[in-house]
Formats: sequence, C-alpha cells, structure tokens
Amino acid sequence: MENEEQKRTNVNDLGEFGLIDHLTFEAIIKQPSTIMGVGDDAAVIDTGDFFTLVSTDMLVEGIHFDLMYTPLKHLGYKAVIVNLSDIYAMNGVPTQITVSIAMSNRFSVEALEELYSGIHLACDLYNVDLVGGDTTSSQKGLIISVTALGQVDKASVSYRRGAKEGDIVCVTGSLGGSYLGLQVLEREKQIYREHPELQPELTGHEYMIGRLLKPEARRDAIAYFESNNIVPTSMIDVSDGLSSELFHLAKQSGVGFVIEEDMVPIHIDAKKLAIDFGIDPITCALHGGEDYELLFTIAEKDLEAIRMMPDVAIIGEVVNRTGGLHLKTSSGNLHALTAQGWTHFGQ
Amino acid sequence: MENEEQKRTNVNDLGEFGLIDHLTFEAIIKQPSTIMGVGDDAAVIDTGDFFTLVSTDMLVEGIHFDLMYTPLKHLGYKAVIVNLSDIYAMNGVPTQITVSIAMSNRFSVEALEELYSGIHLACDLYNVDLVGGDTTSSQKGLIISVTALGQVDKASVSYRRGAKEGDIVCVTGSLGGSYLGLQVLEREKQIYREHPELQPELTGHEYMIGRLLKPEARRDAIAYFESNNIVPTSMIDVSDGLSSELFHLAKQSGVGFVIEEDMVPIHIDAKKLAIDFGIDPITCALHGGEDYELLFTIAEKDLEAIRMMPDVAIIGEVVNRTGGLHLKTSSGNLHALTAQGWTHFGQ
Repeated sequence: MENEEQKRTNVNDLGEFGLIDHLTFEAIIKQPSTIMGVGDDAAVIDTGDFFTLVSTDMLVEGIHFDLMYTPLKHLGYKAVIVNLSDIYAMNGVPTQITVSIAMSNRFSVEALEELYSGIHLACDLYNVDLVGGDTTSSQKGLIISVTALGQVDKASVSYRRGAKEGDIVCVTGSLGGSYLGLQVLEREKQIYREHPELQPELTGHEYMIGRLLKPEARRDAIAYFESNNIVPTSMIDVSDGLSSELFHLAKQSGVGFVIEEDMVPIHIDAKKLAIDFGIDPITCALHGGEDYELLFTIAEKDLEAIRMMPDVAIIGEVVNRTGGLHLKTSSGNLHALTAQGWTHFGQ
Repeated sequence: MENEEQKRTNVNDLGEFGLIDHLTFEAIIKQPSTIMGVGDDAAVIDTGDFFTLVSTDMLVEGIHFDLMYTPLKHLGYKAVIVNLSDIYAMNGVPTQITVSIAMSNRFSVEALEELYSGIHLACDLYNVDLVGGDTTSSQKGLIISVTALGQVDKASVSYRRGAKEGDIVCVTGSLGGSYLGLQVLEREKQIYREHPELQPELTGHEYMIGRLLKPEARRDAIAYFESNNIVPTSMIDVSDGLSSELFHLAKQSGVGFVIEEDMVPIHIDAKKLAIDFGIDPITCALHGGEDYELLFTIAEKDLEAIRMMPDVAIIGEVVNRTGGLHLKTSSGNLHALTAQGWTHFGQ
C-alpha cells in the first residue's frame, strides 16, 4: 500500500500500551452514558439503575496460543475466562458474552465443536449467556474475539485510579505459574521436534500447565467483597505480570508502591520449577503473564475483613508517588520495579 | 491436531448460518436480563429503564475486504458502520463501540493511524463513543472485530420475528449497488494485473464504488420512525442481499412474502452497469450483499406515514406462510425466491 511507504514507524517502537494510547487518543467521549472509556479493565456505561461493564479481547493463533499443546476445548474456555476476569476486575459480575471466530479451512466442524464446548462450559460454570457472534473464514490460523458484558452497583465499581497513600496492596491466588507452564510446554515442544519418539515429561508440572491452559477467573473474590461490604479502592487483573499491573495502578492513581518480596505468593511447585529453569521465582511472579489473579488495594479500615479472606495475600502498601515502585527484599533492600510484562508485539 | 482426523465435516457443508445455529444451539439462557440472544441483528439485554443492544462483527482481510482497492480509512469507517447498522435494525440508537485489531508486521503505525482515522470519523458522525479494544499481532493479514452497543425503548424494539400477514414490506435506499461496485473493482484489479500500465477505468461508477467502500447506516430511518410513532413490526439490515434477509424474516416471523419486482429500488447507474456486466439488475438487488439498507414491515395503519418517508420504497406484502416467498414480475408471474446471499465460506 502506498501510504505505508511514505513514513514507516514500526509498531514495536511504541509497544502495545503506547500504541493503544496513541490510537485512541482522539477518541472523544460524547455520550453522557459513557462513564469510563479506554484505559481500565472494562468500559463503564451508565444504564440507569447500575453500570454496565464491557470488555473485549482478541486471541490470535501463533501469538497468544499454540495449538500444538493447547486443546481446543481449553482454548475456548480460556478465551471466555480472560474476558470475565476483566469484568471481575471492575468489581462487577459478568452476565453475557459474544464470541467471534475466524478460522482457516484446516479446521473442521468437529474442531469448532470442541472449541465451542469449552466456550459453553465456561458460560455454564460462570453463569454467563452467549448472546451473539460471528463465525467466518480466515486466510491463516484461528482468531477468537470475545466481548464480555457485566454489571456493577454504581457505588461498588473499582477503577485502576482509586488507590490512595496508606492503602494496603493485596493479590489473590499465586503468581508466575502460568508463565512456568508455558516454559515447560515450550521445552517439551522443542524436545518433541528433535526427538519425536520421546514422550513429553509433564509429571509434577500439572499445576503450572493447568494455570496456563485452564485458568479460572476470581469470582470468589468479588463475592467475598460483596458479602463483607468491601469496595477495593483500586483493582486490576494480573494478565501481564504483577510489575506491569502495579505500573498501571500507580500511573492512574498517582501513587507509588512498596511490595514485600517475601509476601508475593508463589506456588511451591512453581518455585521448584523456576529454580530448575535457573530463573528467580520472584521474576516469574513479577513479569510472567496470564495468571488472571486480582491485584487490588483496600483502605486500612477493611484490613481485618481481608485477613479473613481465603486465598489472598497482603503484599505491600501504597506510598506517595514520589516513592516510586519498589520491591523490598527479605534483607530490607529496596529494588526499583520495571514494567516488562508480555508485550505481544515484542515476540 | 488429532481430533481433526477422527471425523471431519467441512464447514462449507453447513454454510454460515447453519454453522452458527449448530454451534450456538447449546447456548442456554440463564440470565433474566437476556431478552434475546443469538438470532437477530443484535442481542437484547434488559438494563432497567431500556433495552441495551449488542452486536458484533469480524472483518478479515482476503475474505471480507481486499486492501488492493480498499483505502484503510474507508475500511475503518465501514467496520464501524456495519455494526451500527445492526443496532439501527433493532430500531435502536448506537452509543458505544469497542474495536479489536490484529495485524501482521507488514502494517506500520501510519497505516494503523489511517485505519483509526476512519474509525474515529464514523464515531464522530454517528455520535458513538469508542470505549475499548485491543491491538495485537497476527500471523497474516488484518482482522478487525467491532462490537457495538446501543439502546432502545422497551416498547420500540423491532425483532425479525414480528411480521404479520397483511403487513407492508418496505426497504430504504437502493439495492445491488455495493455488489456492482465490487464487480467493477475486481474487474479493474484483473486488468491491472495483466496490464499494469493501464489506468483503472472507474468513471461513471462512483455511486456503486462508494456504496461498497463507504456505506452509511440508516439512522435517518430510525429517527423518522421515532418522530412518527412508528414501530416496524419486523426489521433486518440488508447485509447479504434482499432475498436472504426476506428468508430470515419469513423463518422467524412464520410468514410468507410477495415482493413486486418493479418496486425493488435499484439506482439508475447500477441498472446500467448490471446490464453492461450481462446481469439482470434484479439479481444484484436480490443476491448482492453489503447494501446496509433496512428491510422492514409495518402494520397497515402506518402506511400513510411511510408514504411520506423520504428514500423508502414499498416493495410488497406479508402473506401467510403457506404462500412462501415470491417475486411478482411486471407481467404478473410469480417466481419463487431462493436465499443465496454471500456466504463467506463459499468463496
């Protein structure tokens, strides 16, 4: 195309977030019902009695998943989960999804049925209705685009921008597992290519592989908040690594963070595997993506209720923005955090 | 993949609509807020004071568009318009969109800016907010997925299922132009390939090419309905050709149609061009896609108001389902209609 030849900036030069900021900068909000547009886990729309939440994600074969080790049913399930996670990250409850799929003619109807069986299963387990979509051809590979809708009470919505100095930083579940699951599967893929007669060695790695291939969204956290009258002052789902998500909260809330290294939750199997791979486990937690846990901040008044919350870790505190973003090691040293989550353009 | 080898049904065997029906058959509606799921131009969700409408469409390079003759700005514009058209087809007003884009590294930031300039222009002209999205890599080509949200008064929503015997059939604008625009551009593409020194011959075909590359959605029709207190008894947008859309209305309303051939609106330039191509103009109107006009039925009581409506044609009447779907020629003969709209899997 001619316009490509005039001036050419490579998309890698901007990075994913820079690119989205750049392209949506011109988006002027005109509808009074638009409470929050681009820039949070989901858009927020005023529909009268409550806010409606909208989140969308596209998964592309060869970029976001590898069908060599991703069963189609799991892929369908995960495509739904990653969008539901964005709705929960606003402290909302997902209600409907639409699913659009483009696939090349190497896929059969039976393969599509497998994919949809995972989509239907996720809808069923998370009480969400599949209300629309589109199935079409692609020139190459499989592309899945899911949009999730949800709702939240107007007084309960949690944005990325509400963290305040003195708030407590928490995260659900454990981090880094999904990244390590990916490393195992990539290693076995390489071995299989060189020695197709060998069986893959996955024993002992079930937890990490499960985290990658069949993640769950933290509806239990949102239910706990509701029944305990807690509204997180800020919240985001951990899709690109803890460090990257902390940067989002810091930027939008205008605060800094101090995270205690020893408090960052890492599963024991993940720790062992990280060491086998020669990676510091904390690096996996900080920079490994696709955990789909919830990172949130709470006001000090809610601390007692959070201490009773199952499967959550208190990992640090919100400080003044001049404090920056730091990891405090067990020896008491402060290390500046960097955002280097998975950027899909960098691959 | 192993599961593809067990039993293989080609997606072409089912066709697009058959495939979507097949895959979404299991979708059980559990949320009380879901009023209409799959099966209309948009899903309908009860959000309290009014219904929220949700529609989604995916456009794939090489399947839905050809960048050899589609400027990126036009493509961005059209990707929005086709989704807004679905919201209007429910008698609603679009309010927000999300846009997800996957593109290969052959696209520069400048190319993406062109695409987004068309997206922003459509948002601006149709008073719609861009509230979310995603930009990622693809292995090949450009894929655009748009989701549109809108709203409609609960008493004013028009489904495909409401046409009744004795109702009057109407269509806005004119039909077949977009299909003919595509034929012109495909012809010139072939000539260019064989004789790259020749200039494309597009003079006189501006109307048809404009219909293909920069369609508009019929917001004016919805505004007219509102100001004249008309609620169409059924409505659908003409994306796959008049005949295909009549089949949808007939199937979902449980009725038949008699369409008067002479009343089907075809632009004079389109008629001439069809004849040049050796195609009967009515065939273009019946089976050519992407006109994005509105096909609707009204109760007889609204006939006088519709006669005053600008740019609309009364093309026939709703009959008993036993009457089937027929085209009545000027000589009074009845021809059975067939649904053979553009099926993207058939290409």
